[in-house]
Amino acid sequence: MDEPRRRSGGRAARQAARLLAHAEHVPFLTRTLTPFEVLDEEGLSLIEYNADTVLQEVGLEFRGNDDALRLFREAGADVTGVRVRFPRGLARTIVQATAPRQFTQYARNPERNVEIGGMHTVLAPNYGSPFVRDLDGGRRYGTIEDFRNLVKLTYMSPHLHHSGGTVCEPVDVPVNKRHLDMVYAHMRYSDKPFMGSVTAPERARDTVEMARILFGAPYLEDHPVVLSLINANSPLVWDGVMLGAAQAYAEANQATLLTPFILAGAMSPVTVAGAATQTLAEALGGMAFVQLVRPGAPVVLGSFASSISMQSGAPTFGTPEPSLVLYVMASLARRLGVSFRSGGNLCASKVADAQAAYESAATFNATILGGVNFVLHAAGWLEGGLTVGYEKFILDADQCGMAAVFVKGVDLTENGQAIDAIRTNEPGQHYLGNAHTLANFEHAFYRSEIADNNSFEQWQEDGSLDANQRANAIWKRMLAEYEAPPLDDATDEALLEFMVKRKAAQPDSDV
Amino acid sequence: MDEPRRRSGGRAARQAARLLAHAEHVPFLTRTLTPFEVLDEEGLSLIEYNADTVLQEVGLEFRGNDDALRLFREAGADVTGVRVRFPRGLARTIVQATAPRQFTQYARNPERNVEIGGMHTVLAPNYGSPFVRDLDGGRRYGTIEDFRNLVKLTYMSPHLHHSGGTVCEPVDVPVNKRHLDMVYAHMRYSDKPFMGSVTAPERARDTVEMARILFGAPYLEDHPVVLSLINANSPLVWDGVMLGAAQAYAEANQATLLTPFILAGAMSPVTVAGAATQTLAEALGGMAFVQLVRPGAPVVLGSFASSISMQSGAPTFGTPEPSLVLYVMASLARRLGVSFRSGGNLCASKVADAQAAYESAATFNATILGGVNFVLHAAGWLEGGLTVGYEKFILDADQCGMAAVFVKGVDLTENGQAIDAIRTNEPGQHYLGNAHTLANFEHAFYRSEIADNNSFEQWQEDGSLDANQRANAIWKRMLAEYEAPPLDDATDEALLEFMVKRKAAQPDSDV
Repeated sequence: MDEPRRRSGGRAARQAARLLAHAEHVPFLTRTLTPFEVLDEEGLSLIEYNADTVLQEVGLEFRGNDDALRLFREAGADVTGVRVRFPRGLARTIVQATAPRQFTQYARNPERNVEIGGMHTVLAPNYGSPFVRDLDGGRRYGTIEDFRNLVKLTYMSPHLHHSGGTVCEPVDVPVNKRHLDMVYAHMRYSDKPFMGSVTAPERARDTVEMARILFGAPYLEDHPVVLSLINANSPLVWDGVMLGAAQAYAEANQATLLTPFILAGAMSPVTVAGAATQTLAEALGGMAFVQLVRPGAPVVLGSFASSISMQSGAPTFGTPEPSLVLYVMASLARRLGVSFRSGGNLCASKVADAQAAYESAATFNATILGGVNFVLHAAGWLEGGLTVGYEKFILDADQCGMAAVFVKGVDLTENGQAIDAIRTNEPGQHYLGNAHTLANFEHAFYRSEIADNNSFEQWQEDGSLDANQRANAIWKRMLAEYEAPPLDDATDEALLEFMVKRKAAQPDSDV
Repeated sequence: MDEPRRRSGGRAARQAARLLAHAEHVPFLTRTLTPFEVLDEEGLSLIEYNADTVLQEVGLEFRGNDDALRLFREAGADVTGVRVRFPRGLARTIVQATAPRQFTQYARNPERNVEIGGMHTVLAPNYGSPFVRDLDGGRRYGTIEDFRNLVKLTYMSPHLHHSGGTVCEPVDVPVNKRHLDMVYAHMRYSDKPFMGSVTAPERARDTVEMARILFGAPYLEDHPVVLSLINANSPLVWDGVMLGAAQAYAEANQATLLTPFILAGAMSPVTVAGAATQTLAEALGGMAFVQLVRPGAPVVLGSFASSISMQSGAPTFGTPEPSLVLYVMASLARRLGVSFRSGGNLCASKVADAQAAYESAATFNATILGGVNFVLHAAGWLEGGLTVGYEKFILDADQCGMAAVFVKGVDLTENGQAIDAIRTNEPGQHYLGNAHTLANFEHAFYRSEIADNNSFEQWQEDGSLDANQRANAIWKRMLAEYEAPPLDDATDEALLEFMVKRKAAQPDSDV
C-alpha cells in the first residue's frame, strides 16, 4: 500500500502544481450574475421595519465603552445606563450618511489590493480555530508554525484573495503576545491584505502600529490596510473589548466587519426572519458606532448565522435555514448600501468527509449566489470552527477556484456561441477534433486540482486514494515549494524590533 | 475499535429511524422561490435563435424510424434521407401547440401522485449504473437483489418522490428479460411512480402492458403512469431504438423525458452557450416527434450536460460550466412552456468522499435553484454514473430533505417574524428558554439523518465514524425494517404470469 500511495502522492502533487501555475490569478472576483433573492421588496421591508422596532423598543447594550454612550446620546439616541434605544430610522441614517458603499483594502503588493463591496467577492481563509488537523497528525492544538503554514498556503493559492486573520490560534505563544506574531506572519510570509487583532483595544493599536511601520504612517490615513472582525455578543450586546478594538481601528481609518455571531435558537429566535431581524438591528448599531467614531471609516455589515441541534444544543452547519438567513442579509446589506460579509465553507464535521463537503458546499453556494462581498472561512474550516484542516483547506480552495469561473457567467461572444462549430460538425460526429474545440480546449473547463476523474482502474492503480489523501500530498508539496515574497530588510528589522519591545513590556499572560 | 463502532452504528441507525419517522412526507416539492437566472432576455433569445439556425441549416438525423420521417415531412420539415431540417420556428410551434406545460404522473398509491412542471420538483434516484458499491463489499456488478434493495430504500425515504427506473443494472438477469424484473420490482416493492424500459420498442410495450395489468387498461388512456428516459445520440441524432420506445409510450399516452446527453467537448462544442444551443435544438426535435405521434402526450425537456477533462477525455462533474448550462436550459424550458428534467447529485468520484459530496452539491444546488421539475440521479450516483453507492444514496437523500425545507423559503407569519420573542428577551440572555423557542423547537431546523453534530469527544467515543460509516448503518437498518406496500394478490399473480409468458417466448440474450 505504501508504495503506490507515495508514487501517486507525488504524481498528484506534480499535477496540482501544474494546475496552480495554470490557474488565472485574479485579485478578487467580480460577479456578472444578479444575486439570488429569497424575499421580495415587501418581505425585506418588513424585516427592516422589525429591526427598527427592536432598536427602538428594546435597544442594544453597549458595555464598557463610555465613548459609545456619549456618541449615541449626542446623535439623538435614548441612552439609559448601557442601554441605547434608537428612534426609528436613526441607526440607518447614521450609517447611510457616511459609510462607504465599497472600499479598497490595500496590500503591500498593489496587485493584491482588494475591492470590498458592489459586485466584488473577496475570499479569505479560516479564522479563529484553536485546533488544527492533518491526515498525518490528526487533531492537535495549533502552533505558530501551523499559523505560518496556513499563511503560506493562502499566499500560494490562486483562489484566495486575502490572507485572513487568526487562521489558527497559535496556542504555543502567550495570549497577550501572539497577536504580534500573527500580524508579523501575515506581513512577512504573504503580500496579500490581512486582518488585525481584536482581543484587546491595545492589541488593535499594536496592529495599527505595525501597519504604520510596513506602509508608512501617513499612508494609513487614507488607505485602509487592515480589516478586522468585530463580533457582537448576541443577543443585542456589543461588549467593551470589541467596541474598544473597533474604535481603535476606526480612529486610524482602518476597516472593520461588524458581525453579529448568531446560532439561532441560542442567540436569537429560532426562525429565519427572527434571526435576520436581530442581525440587522445589531449590525446597524455596531456600524453606527463606527461611523460616529470616525465618519467614513470603512465598515462591512457582517452576518454569521447558523442553526443548532434542538436536541443537543450543538451548532449545526450546512442546513437550509442558515442559507436563507444569508440570502436575506445579503439583500438587506445591498438595500442599506454597505458591503456584506458572511458565509464560507462551514461545516460541523470533524473530518473532511462527505458530511464536511456537503455542509460546506451548502454554505459556500449561498455565499456565492447571494453575492457576499467578503468571505471569511472560505478554506479550512472544520468542526464548527474549532479546527482548521490542512486537507480541508486544499479541498475548499479548489471550490473557491470553481466559484471564480461560475461568477463570470455565460460567454456569449461569437466564440462562446460556437454556432459555426455546430454548422461544421456532422450529426453523429464527435467534437474532440473540431477546430473550435482545439482552439478552446486549454481554457474550456475549470480544472480541479484535487478531483480524480480517471477511470476506476487507473484510480485503483494510483492507490485508490480519496480526496483527503490527494489533498495531503498537495499541501505538503506547496509548503516545500513556498518562497516568501520580497520584504525590504529595514522594514523587516523595524517590525521585529517593535515586536521585541512590545513583548518585553509585559509579562506572559493567558488572557 | 470494533466494539464502539458496532454500538454506535446501532445508535446512529436508531436515531436515523426516529428522524425518518419525524420527517414530513410530501409527494413532491413546491417551490416558492423565483429560480436563479444566469442569462437575461437578450441572451436567452440569442440561444433560441441559434438553436433554430441549427435546426434549419444542419437539422437532426432521425435514424431507424420511417414514421418519424413521414410525420416530419407532413408537418412541413425538409426531409432528405434521415436528415430532417426544420424551417425556423417549426419545431417550437409543434411542441407549443400540444405539449402540456405540466402533468400528473399517477402512482398506484394516489397519495404518491407527482406533479411534473411549474413550480414543482420531483426527486428520483440514480439511473443506469452497471456497478454497485457499499462499504462492506466494495464495487461489484449490480444484481436484481441490489435493484430491489434500491427500490425499497427509495420507497422508504421521505425525501425521494419517485421510484425511478434502472436504479442499477441487474447484470445477473439476461439483457432481453431484465426489464420485466425491473418494472415488476417497482410495482411490487414500492407504491411511488416509476419509469419504464427504453432498451427496445418491444420492451417499452411490455412496460405498458404491465402498467395496464396494474392500473387497468382504460385508466392509462388519460392517466400517465409511466415516465421513460429517451436519450438523444448527440450530436444531432435520435436513433431508432430510442425513437421506437418514445413512440410506444406516446401511442399509449405515457410520458417521456427527451434528453440530449452531452459531455461538452465530445458531444457538443466546449462552450456553455454552444452546449445549450445544441441541447435545445435536439430536445425540440425529440419533443416535436412525440407530439406528432400523439398530440398532447406528456413530454419533458431533458438536459444532461457535463464537461470532460480536456487532458484525458474523462467526464467530469460538479464543475462550474455544467451548472451554467443547467441554469440556461431551465430558463429555456420555462420560456418554451414545458417541464424540465436535469441535474441530480452527480459526481466523478469513485467513493463517497469529499470530492463526491462537493461535486454532487454543485450539481444539486443548481438543480434546486434553477427550478428543475424532474430530477433523476438525486440519490446514489458515483463515478460518472458507472456505480450506484448504497452509502452515497443515504447521504444524497439527506440533501434532498434539506432542499425540501429550502424551497419553502422564509416564513413571514407573525410566528416567523418572532418580533415578540425579541421584545421579551433581554439583551445578553440566551433564547434556549424563550417561550417562542420552546413552541417552535421541534420543527425549527432541518434535522439531518446523517450529520454528526456532537462534540469532538462524543464523536470519538462513538467510534470516530465518518459520514460513510454512519450511512452504512442507516441503509442496513432501513432494509431490515422494510415492509412492502399492500398489493392485490390477483394483480400480483397477473403480473407474474405475464412475466413468465414473456420470458418463455424468447431465449436468453445479452443484447
